Amino acid sequence: MQSDSTARLLITCPDRPGIVAAVSNFLFNHGANITALDQHSTDPEGGLLFMRLEFQTPHLDVPQEILEKAFAEQVAARFEMNWRIAYAAELKKVAILVSKYDHALRELLWRHSNLELPCQLTKVISNHPDLRSEVERFGTPYHYVPVEKERKEEAEAQILELLKGSDLVVLARYMQILTAGFVAQYPHRIINIHHSFLPAFTGASPYKQAHTHGVKIIGATAHYVTEELDQGPIIEQDVARVSHRNDVTELVRLGRDLERNVLARAVQWHLEDRIIVYGNKTVVFS
Amino acid sequence: MQSDSTARLLITCPDRPGIVAAVSNFLFNHGANITALDQHSTDPEGGLLFMRLEFQTPHLDVPQEILEKAFAEQVAARFEMNWRIAYAAELKKVAILVSKYDHALRELLWRHSNLELPCQLTKVISNHPDLRSEVERFGTPYHYVPVEKERKEEAEAQILELLKGSDLVVLARYMQILTAGFVAQYPHRIINIHHSFLPAFTGASPYKQAHTHGVKIIGATAHYVTEELDQGPIIEQDVARVSHRNDVTELVRLGRDLERNVLARAVQWHLEDRIIVYGNKTVVFS
Amino acid sequence: MQSDSTARLLITCPDRPGIVAAVSNFLFNHGANITALDQHSTDPEGGLLFMRLEFQTPHLDVPQEILEKAFAEQVAARFEMNWRIAYAAELKKVAILVSKYDHALRELLWRHSNLELPCQLTKVISNHPDLRSEVERFGTPYHYVPVEKERKEEAEAQILELLKGSDLVVLARYMQILTAGFVAQYPHRIINIHHSFLPAFTGASPYKQAHTHGVKIIGATAHYVTEELDQGPIIEQDVARVSHRNDVTELVRLGRDLERNVLARAVQWHLEDRIIVYGNKTVVFS
Amino acid sequence: MQSDSTARLLITCPDRPGIVAAVSNFLFNHGANITALDQHSTDPEGGLLFMRLEFQTPHLDVPQEILEKAFAEQVAARFEMNWRIAYAAELKKVAILVSKYDHALRELLWRHSNLELPCQLTKVISNHPDLRSEVERFGTPYHYVPVEKERKEEAEAQILELLKGSDLVVLARYMQILTAGFVAQYPHRIINIHHSFLPAFTGASPYKQAHTHGVKIIGATAHYVTEELDQGPIIEQDVARVSHRNDVTELVRLGRDLERNVLARAVQWHLEDRIIVYGNKTVVFS
Repeated sequence: MQSDSTARLLITCPDRPGIVAAVSNFLFNHGANITALDQHSTDPEGGLLFMRLEFQTPHLDVPQEILEKAFAEQVAARFEMNWRIAYAAELKKVAILVSKYDHALRELLWRHSNLELPCQLTKVISNHPDLRSEVERFGTPYHYVPVEKERKEEAEAQILELLKGSDLVVLARYMQILTAGFVAQYPHRIINIHHSFLPAFTGASPYKQAHTHGVKIIGATAHYVTEELDQGPIIEQDVARVSHRNDVTELVRLGRDLERNVLARAVQWHLEDRIIVYGNKTVVFS
Repeated sequence: MQSDSTARLLITCPDRPGIVAAVSNFLFNHGANITALDQHSTDPEGGLLFMRLEFQTPHLDVPQEILEKAFAEQVAARFEMNWRIAYAAELKKVAILVSKYDHALRELLWRHSNLELPCQLTKVISNHPDLRSEVERFGTPYHYVPVEKERKEEAEAQILELLKGSDLVVLARYMQILTAGFVAQYPHRIINIHHSFLPAFTGASPYKQAHTHGVKIIGATAHYVTEELDQGPIIEQDVARVSHRNDVTELVRLGRDLERNVLARAVQWHLEDRIIVYGNKTVVFS
Repeated sequence: MQSDSTARLLITCPDRPGIVAAVSNFLFNHGANITALDQHSTDPEGGLLFMRLEFQTPHLDVPQEILEKAFAEQVAARFEMNWRIAYAAELKKVAILVSKYDHALRELLWRHSNLELPCQLTKVISNHPDLRSEVERFGTPYHYVPVEKERKEEAEAQILELLKGSDLVVLARYMQILTAGFVAQYPHRIINIHHSFLPAFTGASPYKQAHTHGVKIIGATAHYVTEELDQGPIIEQDVARVSHRNDVTELVRLGRDLERNVLARAVQWHLEDRIIVYGNKTVVFS
Repeated sequence: MQSDSTARLLITCPDRPGIVAAVSNFLFNHGANITALDQHSTDPEGGLLFMRLEFQTPHLDVPQEILEKAFAEQVAARFEMNWRIAYAAELKKVAILVSKYDHALRELLWRHSNLELPCQLTKVISNHPDLRSEVERFGTPYHYVPVEKERKEEAEAQILELLKGSDLVVLARYMQILTAGFVAQYPHRIINIHHSFLPAFTGASPYKQAHTHGVKIIGATAHYVTEELDQGPIIEQDVARVSHRNDVTELVRLGRDLERNVLARAVQWHLEDRIIVYGNKTVVFS
């Protein structure tokens, strides 16, 4: 875990010579000590460069606002950078949407209470009342927003109101499909866990689909939600071996362990600013 | 590896009480010592039972033919069994079809020379001349059968002629699509390696598809070939982690290691009579 | 999960012809429907045979006691069998010992509440008061038994008293070493989770040892407790990749996920009577 | 695979502010385009920094020798760096030592012929004559150097003579223990594959040891050879699940697949200058 004085600079720009030197000089000259640096280029000749730096802020010679303004003017503009700086001390505000299955939610609550997920867990919203006590005992507010088929828009409006100010929305097995309008409010800031090895078995009942196909390995996929169902940029996946002995019920049970771990990892990486989305894919810095 | 005196009895039948007793009594009474027994039932009430027994033949009180005839009349008929007995001493005749990529072929040749694949490797057939010396130095005949687009049927006829008497046909990255007529000659006796985690990425260039989708795990799938491309019963799958750092070329390279191992395992299990196909799925006894 | 009418017969005996026939006949003749059968032989000639059968009891022609008595006389004696029958309807009584780390305990509590661990969770005993509320909200009694260095025997006596009637004792990161006298009371009925890939890194601080050795993979091991520390029969192990980037704190965090899953699997298999111990090893039927 | 114009700069030095800026400035000012950069710090306050950069040489403003001299004087001295630059165009000279088992050797030969191992494979040396034809058909010279117990030193002297000029020595299941004097000639330039998950099961017959211990997972470890047997810095490890069904022979067979892949990966990483040794551990940049 990073200390409170850690800042993270994420950059996407056309690759060309001199970028590392320009960025590291800028930071060094302002008293920022670079403690981690990772980069990826799709092609050094005319490709895209993705870069993630961690630096320490205690000895900065200017306030954060000034630093960012200077970076924008002196470095970012020159290299046509898409960039942002995140500060570990400014905890992201996270809301969780859940339905009835509790495994993914519990995993997030437990890891958060265990200091593995550096964020402010502001609220849990559910279309079912079932998990209230489970959530409230962690001191997290629980909002029950029933979603009736013919009044889905009202429900979404209510949820959006509750979400105001959120930095990240996590769908921890939330069984309602979000409208495009909803998704557009949180571009690359809604993480969903899908209970299959995408792109195989999109949509409903993936374990049943897996069983029907007789696959020997099942999976789970955490991805950013986009307008198209189960098609957003993949953040993380994991798999488990199964055999003819496992019926659908057992696939569901084995899959639970995948789902909760894959989702927790994806959320952690998002919170640590390790992910850059480009096109429909992700760069995940380790 | 089993000794030469091992026989394997494979049974599929409606599940109902008394089957184990009937089969084991029959074998015991004929001097067959059961050395392994595995069974799987889709549902004890009205489901299907799959059973695999290994027994030792040295003390049989009757010749194999008589034993099989007696089993058919006294046991199999009563329980409506679909069954067969395979004898380890009767090595299966295996032919390999390959194009230009050598990794899967080499793996099979090496494992066979290493006594890991109990079979008679009768020949390798290729639509390219490239791998002849690689094959012939193992003492295996190599047949070059070019497949021209407009004369595909002729080529297939030639290959079918060469395959006569084969118990198993292995497609070790054979890049031609077999016609339905060809496939029908070898039901559940053609094993293909597909370079993706099926059912994701069927058809051409699966690694390119995987790269485009930004998956975090790639796979390979060994399956029996059926009329429908890449849709036959899955025998074995395996996966490897990849990241944004891996371009298509590297996915191909990483995938090679998956392909050769997955195919080798599937072939080995077929040769050891561990696989029963039902519907479009497999039971693979360990 | 098995239904309440499932019984499991576990057998260890010298291997010789006729065992399957004798056992299956006996069961069939008494109206027991065999729904699963697995066996393993260390060597068909003079080796040991291990067998696990599942059968359904609804149509038994005699009460369980009579069945067992008859089996002992008519089958077990003849083949010198070490055997037992367990009935799924008779839930095993399980007590958990824990210290301060909560991850393994929580996993067991959650899986139990989720019906994944078929047992009666009778109590949790701890040498610390910390986890009381976590346990009691599941309706499970919590006993705080402090263990002072100079009064260890008293504490053990108190714990043994509390354990009376337990079928299984689970050490879910219990940080006290049990005396030989204690262990002798529960032969092959105490399961411990050790936070390393045994036999590497026995004893204290295995993650620190792993870090010092610069291993690229860490592990966790569930085993039956014997007199010799961390040397009992291994039930299950699992591993995770690590790198130079992971300091000891991160190894501990990554290891937690291994520990809780490995322990939960081992406990589940014990509860489902899938494990036979022989010498210092286990047969685990899948 | 990198192009021929790629150079790799590896640095170990005390961590302190300004290093990235100094290095990247130096390279940029000399026309070197940085195409990859990875770094690891054991502790930003007083720890060690490890850095690996890839840069492209076509537009260098000075010859390599001048560049290196300038770097030594202007950058390395100031930060007390332990450093080296490797050029992809200068293929490392690799010699393989092997005994009778062919699997690791074949894997290396095949991968090399497949352009997966960027090196010049200069020779194979063996204490057995068996694998000569296997090696020579790849065009690689084979030297048979018998090692008799009482004349081990002579044999080692002969091998050292043959190795002269080698950049890397790979022990692909070479069953002779090298003397300390031999090892001292190639510090961190001899890679061995040990057929266990080190530090478990050092020394002879690790699969037999694994079987005796009843482990549920076996492993293989590639490491640099040091004076102490099987104790050198670990480069890579991998594992495979086993069960009570697998006897020692099968562990050996399953282990072969681990050994050859683990060794091949370790050799590849060494050839790509991804490994820095410190103390008895490795940093392996991905």
